[in-house]
Amino acid sequence: MDEVMLSVNLVWVMLGTVLVFFMHAGFAMVEAGFTRSKNAVNIIMKNFLTISLGGIVYFFCGYAIMFGDTAGGIIGTSGFALNGVDDLSFFIFQTMFAATGATILSGAVAERTNILAYIGVIVLMTFLVYPVVGHWVWSGQGWLTDLGFVDFAGSTVVHLTGAVAAFVAAAIIGPRLGKYENGRVNVITGHSIPLGALGVFLLWFGWFGFNGASTLAADPTLVPSVIANTFFAAAAGVVATAFYTKFRYGHIDGSLTLNGALAGLVGITAGAANVSIIGSIIIGLIAAPLLVEGVRFIEWKLKVDDPVGAIAVHGICGVWGTLAVGLFDVGGQGLFYGGGFGLLGVQVIGVLATIAWVGVSVSAGLFIIKAFVPLRVTTEEEIAGLDVIEHGTPAYEYQDIFKSSAVQGETFAQRLTHFGKSPTNIHEEHV
Amino acid sequence: MDEVMLSVNLVWVMLGTVLVFFMHAGFAMVEAGFTRSKNAVNIIMKNFLTISLGGIVYFFCGYAIMFGDTAGGIIGTSGFALNGVDDLSFFIFQTMFAATGATILSGAVAERTNILAYIGVIVLMTFLVYPVVGHWVWSGQGWLTDLGFVDFAGSTVVHLTGAVAAFVAAAIIGPRLGKYENGRVNVITGHSIPLGALGVFLLWFGWFGFNGASTLAADPTLVPSVIANTFFAAAAGVVATAFYTKFRYGHIDGSLTLNGALAGLVGITAGAANVSIIGSIIIGLIAAPLLVEGVRFIEWKLKVDDPVGAIAVHGICGVWGTLAVGLFDVGGQGLFYGGGFGLLGVQVIGVLATIAWVGVSVSAGLFIIKAFVPLRVTTEEEIAGLDVIEHGTPAYEYQDIFKSSAVQGETFAQRLTHFGKSPTNIHEEHV
Amino acid sequence: MDEVMLSVNLVWVMLGTVLVFFMHAGFAMVEAGFTRSKNAVNIIMKNFLTISLGGIVYFFCGYAIMFGDTAGGIIGTSGFALNGVDDLSFFIFQTMFAATGATILSGAVAERTNILAYIGVIVLMTFLVYPVVGHWVWSGQGWLTDLGFVDFAGSTVVHLTGAVAAFVAAAIIGPRLGKYENGRVNVITGHSIPLGALGVFLLWFGWFGFNGASTLAADPTLVPSVIANTFFAAAAGVVATAFYTKFRYGHIDGSLTLNGALAGLVGITAGAANVSIIGSIIIGLIAAPLLVEGVRFIEWKLKVDDPVGAIAVHGICGVWGTLAVGLFDVGGQGLFYGGGFGLLGVQVIGVLATIAWVGVSVSAGLFIIKAFVPLRVTTEEEIAGLDVIEHGTPAYEYQDIFKSSAVQGETFAQRLTHFGKSPTNIHEEHV
Repeated sequence: MDEVMLSVNLVWVMLGTVLVFFMHAGFAMVEAGFTRSKNAVNIIMKNFLTISLGGIVYFFCGYAIMFGDTAGGIIGTSGFALNGVDDLSFFIFQTMFAATGATILSGAVAERTNILAYIGVIVLMTFLVYPVVGHWVWSGQGWLTDLGFVDFAGSTVVHLTGAVAAFVAAAIIGPRLGKYENGRVNVITGHSIPLGALGVFLLWFGWFGFNGASTLAADPTLVPSVIANTFFAAAAGVVATAFYTKFRYGHIDGSLTLNGALAGLVGITAGAANVSIIGSIIIGLIAAPLLVEGVRFIEWKLKVDDPVGAIAVHGICGVWGTLAVGLFDVGGQGLFYGGGFGLLGVQVIGVLATIAWVGVSVSAGLFIIKAFVPLRVTTEEEIAGLDVIEHGTPAYEYQDIFKSSAVQGETFAQRLTHFGKSPTNIHEEHV
Repeated sequence: MDEVMLSVNLVWVMLGTVLVFFMHAGFAMVEAGFTRSKNAVNIIMKNFLTISLGGIVYFFCGYAIMFGDTAGGIIGTSGFALNGVDDLSFFIFQTMFAATGATILSGAVAERTNILAYIGVIVLMTFLVYPVVGHWVWSGQGWLTDLGFVDFAGSTVVHLTGAVAAFVAAAIIGPRLGKYENGRVNVITGHSIPLGALGVFLLWFGWFGFNGASTLAADPTLVPSVIANTFFAAAAGVVATAFYTKFRYGHIDGSLTLNGALAGLVGITAGAANVSIIGSIIIGLIAAPLLVEGVRFIEWKLKVDDPVGAIAVHGICGVWGTLAVGLFDVGGQGLFYGGGFGLLGVQVIGVLATIAWVGVSVSAGLFIIKAFVPLRVTTEEEIAGLDVIEHGTPAYEYQDIFKSSAVQGETFAQRLTHFGKSPTNIHEEHV
Repeated sequence: MDEVMLSVNLVWVMLGTVLVFFMHAGFAMVEAGFTRSKNAVNIIMKNFLTISLGGIVYFFCGYAIMFGDTAGGIIGTSGFALNGVDDLSFFIFQTMFAATGATILSGAVAERTNILAYIGVIVLMTFLVYPVVGHWVWSGQGWLTDLGFVDFAGSTVVHLTGAVAAFVAAAIIGPRLGKYENGRVNVITGHSIPLGALGVFLLWFGWFGFNGASTLAADPTLVPSVIANTFFAAAAGVVATAFYTKFRYGHIDGSLTLNGALAGLVGITAGAANVSIIGSIIIGLIAAPLLVEGVRFIEWKLKVDDPVGAIAVHGICGVWGTLAVGLFDVGGQGLFYGGGFGLLGVQVIGVLATIAWVGVSVSAGLFIIKAFVPLRVTTEEEIAGLDVIEHGTPAYEYQDIFKSSAVQGETFAQRLTHFGKSPTNIHEEHV
């Protein structure tokens, strides 16, 4: 019977694995839809490279640093390239999580970041930054686990980590051309809300695996509650954002309401196994204004240009979700359930430690990357769009490729030549 | 061993749950793709609100009315906010079904319905209209169950319910501007067939969970047959619609053939556990001409404007699927299998009762909603498109936002101001 | 306990079934995205018909020819319309595979093939061509199985079969107008890279079911390794294509890198249950240059016009994947693991036999189809685009439908009339 149960749990975790994989399709569509069409191929390439290169780096190094034998509760030290690792099922599930942090960052620095520098960021995030936080919380040997820190599926480990990295990178790389000019904050709307909406649906769908399979077992006493909580927090996030923006701005805002689903999902990730359905609805309801005001604060006050709102969604709501466990835990530790401030205090420590580590390590990492490649594309490339220059193809047939070109009146091949690129499969050569 | 079996069934039902959730992405893409781009954000917002608000309403009220202790086989009366409910697995699976009726309606009244009125419709459908039909058929205590009515996964409970509501709402709200003028019936084509096609694929994919997990158990003697029937009815619907439109109109019609898959799926939903593969193919084959002629009849004769063909797909084929069980049931009750007219008669009663209840309750509900908010947007808003005015953003970068504007020559911010809206994240203010 | 295990395996195979079904959504989006918008509805119709008609043909005939009692190890002879077949679970899983070969072909002959001729191809492929190869390898009674040929999930059976058929068809049907003119090879770029990228993600996601459930059991000692190998080969394919095109052409090529994921996936399909993660990474790394140079070779040297690169992806990488098992098998048969040339030799035989059978049978089949319907659309239709003429609707609202029209200045209805079609649901008639 134990053997059969092993198979049942296997099916559950494998289902979770493929669902979390699929979230990368969601991230790609959200980030492409919420940015301009002249950079759509570029952001898609970055997303494909994130899950691909990130997975490979995690196989060789990241998994060992995250789950290897601990050095003082700080970092893992064994199991590189899976040396001595038996449980491939757990490993491949974790691999799908690993690249999420880098993916979050990719959206926040979209439309102006050099893809070679971004490749450096992928390595940095999946090799070191994320695995270290993961070691603290999920290895069973970390110092935060020892304190009693609770983060079921990663409001902090995954989302806050990604968002802090995103904030640091977006601040260092700087805003897109035209975002802030003459004392104005200009809006640069995305090129396809339907594509972004599809991405949000894909993420929500995948999130059922992200949270659901984090149980690691098909436990009838736990799984339905995790799935229900995941759904209701997102649903509350949508409803609350719709009404909040109606109240705040006079209309149900399109892109913010879509992000409202993600805000609820990030919010429930830490406590999906710990709270009630009512708790999860409240978490989603509160995530909504945090998102709306967070986006505004980051964009208007801090003047950090985050095209897709990733920092507010994953960072502010990641912190909220982590703290919310300390409030709504039904297992006796939640403040509102008579548990006092104990867990809440530990959650604060975990959040602060993560912010500190990620902030410092990503800053240092970008400093090193910058020594090899420029972090930004050139002004000329940014104006022309990254797609044609860096990837040899516009995203859409409908684009008048000359409109966004730095130099008018060129043919497509001439434009490539102008930027010193050889025309690949945009060849019109003699044979 | 019972415990392990519990886990196996859990995994199956949870897989079904996430697949049915994903159908809402399919509905959103179908409805967006088959309508005009100037209303794409609006229909997407409506779909997000449907599953979100609908789920929450179902949690607080709908589930109790559907599965609570019965009052005379008519309506459930206990279990509000899951009070006394243990089986979260069954509940969350049912929650994903709950909002489908409202979603079907949203497509039929697309491009002209006030979103606040539509929010009222969501509440109406998930609080009362759908749960009552569900109580009759699926609670185990309903009067239709007592009669022997068979509706495995909801050709009547879900699809006919949604379609009758859609018909009533579309008739009351009236056609889109320009649909019927000077004695002509104009076609208003959708803005993206590929998006609609993607939506159909998502629905078909999700339908395997909709029908498959309605077994509620991973039963090897039942599940493969349900999955196969679901597939073959849809496949037959596609093939038959392609050939029927080729014969009828001289070409394989794009949007009708896509709807042909849905026609087959709606048709097999009632009998997926009761018919053979041959039976399911025949059901799909017959659904096709019903769809094609149904769309024409509703649009040309009844002059009800249903932009996405939802009434024909879910209503006419929902009736067909319900009756088809009485014809093709292999368990001894099907007319063609020597079962006589008994079951067929009961199926007719179930269909008529559902039409009566939904017709009356939705009419009354719309009457009440109308007392608070107008059902339609203004003519000016309808011409301008609902996206910019109601949601602060056009769906696509490529749209010349002035082209569809009621007033030419305005800037984007001026347009919003013109409609008395404050520019949100379309701000070009000083900082 | 055996009964419970049956249920567990059922859930796993059903999950695989729906994932493989979903790959057809992926194929549709890849093929639509990588071709021009004026033919997008047409290629989507072809994909819907492929899975639909293909599935039905396979039910009536193909399955019997593939898995029926063997005639000399060459062809199956029993089980038509599932006569005497008990295992519906295995059957429906296999059905989803059956149409893949035709789908691969549809991409390679896109934008110029008569849809009626293509319907003939669907029948040909699912009735005979694919089932025969399947019988040789997967029926347990085939001559290739007797030799010891290894093809776990179908690098040869599915992908090479589809690619050889694609090559033959594309060569016979000839290139698109304008592809080769005045000694030049022109590039005809796809109309939506984001749609194509979404398709690649859908395929990758579905491939976990394609390979994963080919185990036919939720075996904890096998499944995680199959899933991991599937992921890492694709990941390596992406990374290697990105760097190889950067090196070869000076930029990370957009559409080739997307195809790089598919190249890795096709490459690992034969050996997913036989190689290590390191082996799968190497298989993916080598698939990348094979893809890039293969596309160029087919397009430039052989002058076969394959709009989506299907022949290189599924054919060249299919051969590579099949041979790679002979190199990297960790079970004692791989050349690099001390297994000698034995298995490698058998793999070569399997590849050659498949090329011969598919090449001859598809050529003969096309010859027969051509006796009934023309293989190509007319020049006038090809220039105007296949959508409006053959399917009564343009794919997108944004298309200026007159631009691609053969005759300028017509209204939409006039255009249809011009091509001898009656205006269907593009009716502007009196009522």
